[in-house]
Formats: sequence, C-alpha cells, structure tokens
Amino acid sequence: MFNEAKNWFKLLRDDLVKNTQVFEKKSFIEKRWKHHDEGGGLMTKIKGNVIEKGGINISTVSGKFNEKMQKNVLGASEDPTFSATGISVVFHPMSPHIPSMHFNTRYLTTTKSWFGGGMDLTPCLDFDNESQIFHKELEDICNRYNDDYYPKYKKWCDEYFYLKHRKEPRGIGGIFFDHLNSGNQENDFEFVKDVGKFFLKHAIYLINKDKDRAWTSREKDVQLIKRGRYVEFNLLYDRGTKFGLETGGNTEAILMSMPPIANWE
Amino acid sequence: MFNEAKNWFKLLRDDLVKNTQVFEKKSFIEKRWKHHDEGGGLMTKIKGNVIEKGGINISTVSGKFNEKMQKNVLGASEDPTFSATGISVVFHPMSPHIPSMHFNTRYLTTTKSWFGGGMDLTPCLDFDNESQIFHKELEDICNRYNDDYYPKYKKWCDEYFYLKHRKEPRGIGGIFFDHLNSGNQENDFEFVKDVGKFFLKHAIYLINKDKDRAWTSREKDVQLIKRGRYVEFNLLYDRGTKFGLETGGNTEAILMSMPPIANWE
Repeated sequence: MFNEAKNWFKLLRDDLVKNTQVFEKKSFIEKRWKHHDEGGGLMTKIKGNVIEKGGINISTVSGKFNEKMQKNVLGASEDPTFSATGISVVFHPMSPHIPSMHFNTRYLTTTKSWFGGGMDLTPCLDFDNESQIFHKELEDICNRYNDDYYPKYKKWCDEYFYLKHRKEPRGIGGIFFDHLNSGNQENDFEFVKDVGKFFLKHAIYLINKDKDRAWTSREKDVQLIKRGRYVEFNLLYDRGTKFGLETGGNTEAILMSMPPIANWE
Repeated sequence: MFNEAKNWFKLLRDDLVKNTQVFEKKSFIEKRWKHHDEGGGLMTKIKGNVIEKGGINISTVSGKFNEKMQKNVLGASEDPTFSATGISVVFHPMSPHIPSMHFNTRYLTTTKSWFGGGMDLTPCLDFDNESQIFHKELEDICNRYNDDYYPKYKKWCDEYFYLKHRKEPRGIGGIFFDHLNSGNQENDFEFVKDVGKFFLKHAIYLINKDKDRAWTSREKDVQLIKRGRYVEFNLLYDRGTKFGLETGGNTEAILMSMPPIANWE
C-alpha cells in the first residue's frame, strides 16, 4: 500500500503540473531535497500570471521518531520507526475572484498505518453559490464511502482552520481527516484518490471560470488582507508548519504555503 | 514608581506622536481599549507617507495571573496579583533605506518589581555604518549605568531576535533587558528613560536622513521579503505576541507590530 500511495501521489502531482501549465506559460521551478533521516521530496513552485504563487510538494521519508513524537504519533510508542509519503498543494491565485486552495493527502506507517489529508478553500470575495457547490461535491464523495465521513470531516475542518485570536474561520472549510483505517485499506485508498481527483478537477474549474474576469484594486486589497490572515493561521496554528519547522524540516518546502504579497492594515 | 513610570511612558508617547506628525501630514488613528481584568490602553496607528505603517501603544493593566502565568512570572507564585505599565513602538517606514524600528519598555509589579524592555533595528539594505553608530550609542548609554549591561543586553537581543528555521537574525539587534532591579529603582528608571529618549532621537534621525532619498523597485522588493521574515519572527517566536494572543489580549493592539505589504517569494 505504501508504494501504491507514493506512486499515485506522484501521478497526481504530474497531472496537477500538466493541467496548470496549460494556462501558465512560464516554466515552474522544481527542486529536489533530501530529508535528514532518509528520503526526501520534490518541490514545484509556480510563480505565474494566473496562480500568483503556488506550491506542489511530494515527499517520502522514513526514520525513527524522537521521544516527543513517539508519544504523540499513533502506534509509535511501541516502535519509533515510521514511513510517510504524501502530497501537499497550495494555490494563491492572482485574481481575488478565485479562492486560495489547499489540499493534501498522506499515508503513514508506524506499528499502525493510515491515510490522512483534506482540502479547503479560502475565498476573499462573495462565494456563497460556489461554496455550496464545493461542499455538496465533497459530501457526495464522502457518502460513496461512509455516511459518517462528511459531517465528521467537515466539522474537523471547520474546527481546525479557525483563527481563535480573530474569532473568524480561515476560509469556507472543506474536509479534514486523519487516522483513516477502516479495515479495508484498498477502499480507503479509493476514497483518498477520489478526494485528490476532485481537487484537481475543481481547482482547474474554479481557475478557468474566473481567471479572465476583471477585478478592481479595492477587490485586490481585500485579497491582500485575507492573505495576511492566511499567514497568521499558518504560523500561529498550523500543526504541520510548526512541527516541520521545529523538527528541522525543509524550511523552503514548509513555507511554500505562504502567500505572495500580503497586507496588514 | 509605578505611577512615575506610567506618566513618563505617556509623555514619551506624546513626544513620539508630535515628532512623527511633523513629516506625516495625515492625522493618526487613536483607539482606546479596555483590558478584560482592569485597565486598558491607547493605540495610535500611523499610516503615513514616510512611516508606511507604525504603531505606538501605551497600556496600564492590573489583575491576577492565571496558574500558568503564576509559575512563569517572577514573584507571582506567592501572590498572583500584578500591575504592568508599558509603551511599545514599531515603525515600518516606506523607504527601504530606513530600517524597521522596534522599541518597548515596561514596569511590572508582583511581589517583586522590575523594568524590562529594549530596542532593535531591522534594515533591509546596506546599513554597516549606521549599524556601528547605533550600537555605539547604546553602549554609551548602558556604560553610564553599569559596564555589564551592554554586553549582556546586546547578547540577549541577538539571541532573542533570531529566526531558527531560517538560521538568520531578524535584524541588526540592539539591546534587550528584563527583570532589571538593581536595588536603586530611581537609577533604573533613569536608565529606562535614557533608552526611551535615545529611541525617539535616533528614530527621527534615521527617518529624516533618508526619507527623501530615492529607491528602486528592486530595493523595495528586498524590503517586502525582509518584512515577510519580520512576520515570521513575530508569529512564530515573539513571546509578547504569543502570550497576548493566547491570553485573550487585544488582537488589534498586539498585531499592530505587523508590517504593511509583505512578500514571500
């Protein structure tokens, strides 16, 4: 399953690059990096005319968790050996009409094994109609597997992407899941693939729909403030960012999620 | 001493506003806020042509520390009652030739009492010569009180304003001190006043020297990246910011330190 997941994340990465390259004429910046334990990753950075800044990271690493991590990670207290493979994507579009988009999925093995991941959108202008479409499609995907998934994963997402100090959500949410092991890993993997395929399809749909639509400088200003909030979330709360930076991960790969130009009033 | 310190911080605040208002033609935004325990503060926000964004905050609050704070704050384990009064200033100038400037001083009482504070500069372009002048002046002030202060407070500053994940300092440092109680509080207060007066004088000097000097868009770009690092420091490491946000402080006052437009490549 580990290699199947790893290979599929690579295919999804290639598909994302290929589909994004259709409207971005510039070539993307690719950078391979090595993990201090074992393994490494491939960062792909987009600095485009449609996606003002985007990052697509895939990585596969293995090693032994330190003591703190052994206590915190499922199944690691008995044996600190772990392997992890995943894909992580963030798009910050140029147009304030297109939301920032975030997606990731991963497969982890310790003495246990599971999938985790999710996706969410951060629009800065009116998005009511598109928000309904997005949530409905996620609900339909979830319901193909388990009726409990959608309410549980939506709630998890809403609770996770929340800026307590602002008393406001980061965006409109989506789904967020972890420790997914239903007992049928082939089936779990199908769910994870469906989530990934939906992100690809829906990201391209949202981009194509609005990439040529005009915006005002006032609308752009609203976007820059919203991006400031995005920065606040990632640096103050995001577990992956904090964990990565604290454990000496690749700073460039971790902070690829940061937006371009952001503003604080 | 508490009231003396409080009154002097208010006078310094008024002097800073008056001296800044000379080159900023717009009026500043003033906002009074109340602390959830007792007391409150006055925020003054500058959105100018010379200081692109600046904040001058004074506050005086009192109350009882929660259990966590009782353990962490000097003299609070015996009795949780505290009073604090302080001034905090951040200037993010428009010109990339002028460094971002940060200064604060405070007086705290629990079962003990002490002064704390510091100042530091964050230039983004060549600053070698000015850096020497700045450090030398701080050294002279410190040496008027105690020969140990400057080496100790400079080191403290360098260690504090360091971005571990980037392996780089936030700026060129300055001084940073806490729990200052030499046994002669009148003398400590004179030191704190000298630090404050120097900040006022030197900030105005640095601004006047370069506010009309031309810069290139490339130099401005360097500044925006440097400001991104400033954001990273404040949200990832700054104890005041984290403490304030976690304990339900005034978000607007706490995040007044954030720069305007910042960039992540």
